Amino acid sequence: MLLVCEHASNAFPPPWGDLGLDPAARRAHIAWDPGALDLARALAQRLDACLVHAPVSRLIHDLNRAPDSAGAMPQRSEVYDIPGNRGLTPADRAARVAAVYDPFHAGLSAVVARRIALGLHPVMVTVHSFTPVWHGVPREVELGVIHDDTRPGDDRFARAVLAAAWAMTDLRAELNAPYSAADEVTHLLRLHAVPYGLPHAMLEIRNDLIADPEACAHMADRLAPVLTRALVALKGA
Amino acid sequence: MLLVCEHASNAFPPPWGDLGLDPAARRAHIAWDPGALDLARALAQRLDACLVHAPVSRLIHDLNRAPDSAGAMPQRSEVYDIPGNRGLTPADRAARVAAVYDPFHAGLSAVVARRIALGLHPVMVTVHSFTPVWHGVPREVELGVIHDDTRPGDDRFARAVLAAAWAMTDLRAELNAPYSAADEVTHLLRLHAVPYGLPHAMLEIRNDLIADPEACAHMADRLAPVLTRALVALKGA
Repeated sequence: MLLVCEHASNAFPPPWGDLGLDPAARRAHIAWDPGALDLARALAQRLDACLVHAPVSRLIHDLNRAPDSAGAMPQRSEVYDIPGNRGLTPADRAARVAAVYDPFHAGLSAVVARRIALGLHPVMVTVHSFTPVWHGVPREVELGVIHDDTRPGDDRFARAVLAAAWAMTDLRAELNAPYSAADEVTHLLRLHAVPYGLPHAMLEIRNDLIADPEACAHMADRLAPVLTRALVALKGA
Repeated sequence: MLLVCEHASNAFPPPWGDLGLDPAARRAHIAWDPGALDLARALAQRLDACLVHAPVSRLIHDLNRAPDSAGAMPQRSEVYDIPGNRGLTPADRAARVAAVYDPFHAGLSAVVARRIALGLHPVMVTVHSFTPVWHGVPREVELGVIHDDTRPGDDRFARAVLAAAWAMTDLRAELNAPYSAADEVTHLLRLHAVPYGLPHAMLEIRNDLIADPEACAHMADRLAPVLTRALVALKGA
């Protein structure tokens, strides 16, 4: 199993700096997925899995969006303006792609290709968190399991994860919630999982459930067996 | 327009060397696509297009096959045995992936991502050649235009190229001949064109028609206007 955390970081290193955001905005869900990296690390330990994660904030370049997507370097995210993303020139955008997007994806590609060359066929799981309230509306779902929709069968592992979550936890778990591949959230899976036919799922955990390291450990204790059962179910199918 | 030539080279550099092949086998279509690089260069000049091409023989690592494909480092190709590809260990395969597959695809990804970041939306055309006689059977088709089959609309540019070839040349041109995406020949397009929604086509030219630089130049004189017309048709659609 190969874990990926695209929105792991709220670091704003030079040359970009804080993009004009105050400390509260830099800690908010617009800058990263709070809790996702701690949860991904806890899952990696429990599953003995490799973890690849982002080194900088998604607001510098969202690694799960194509470089021409409005969401790659957004001028506005939910209710926040991002001053440092206003008026970017094509050269500014290309420089961020070269500094952030290219090396991350080249590195992840090499991790995937090496495993495939070794005769392994990894399952790819991306780990995200979502905000409990979005544009003022509370979200009831606690665990979303999302799959790409490019090819028939892309939903197989996600459905196995969902079935295991329902069977083994009391989490409110839903398929393709709070959003789906139609919302452009499976870019990374389309680059790295779909072309190799890798089973995959994108996990979305409501971030109030993984707000501190203890909560992350508790969630990992629940989700690691869920992922293991889904893997066994997939192999048996 | 972005041109790619995955089978451009019949170079067998160290540490792999000639894989036990005699000079005739190293010049044959199993080692590369004869004529494809000269044709791709001639097209790049006429279209002012960027060209990315392979530096080593496809028999070391076929850049248009996933690392776990039997065709990536084949032990046999058509009627030829490849002694140097027998008994490869998983570590041997992983080393070839790291040396050949990873840097080529990372480089091509960066070329694509930069163009997309700059607001361009390139058309990707891969340039190949095929042998006139395969397993003893002559092939009548002269120009094959192949497309991926992952998503609806993946055939749009290929169909436009084919229509232009029929209108502007007397080449025997066919869609998805002498093989198609079902034969695993669109791996590169699935990695680099499909995830970004780039229009694409794979050109297959019978190699007896591009056997020397003059023939390549003549073919490029015919195909450059075909590609241009297809591009115009696509933009008008």
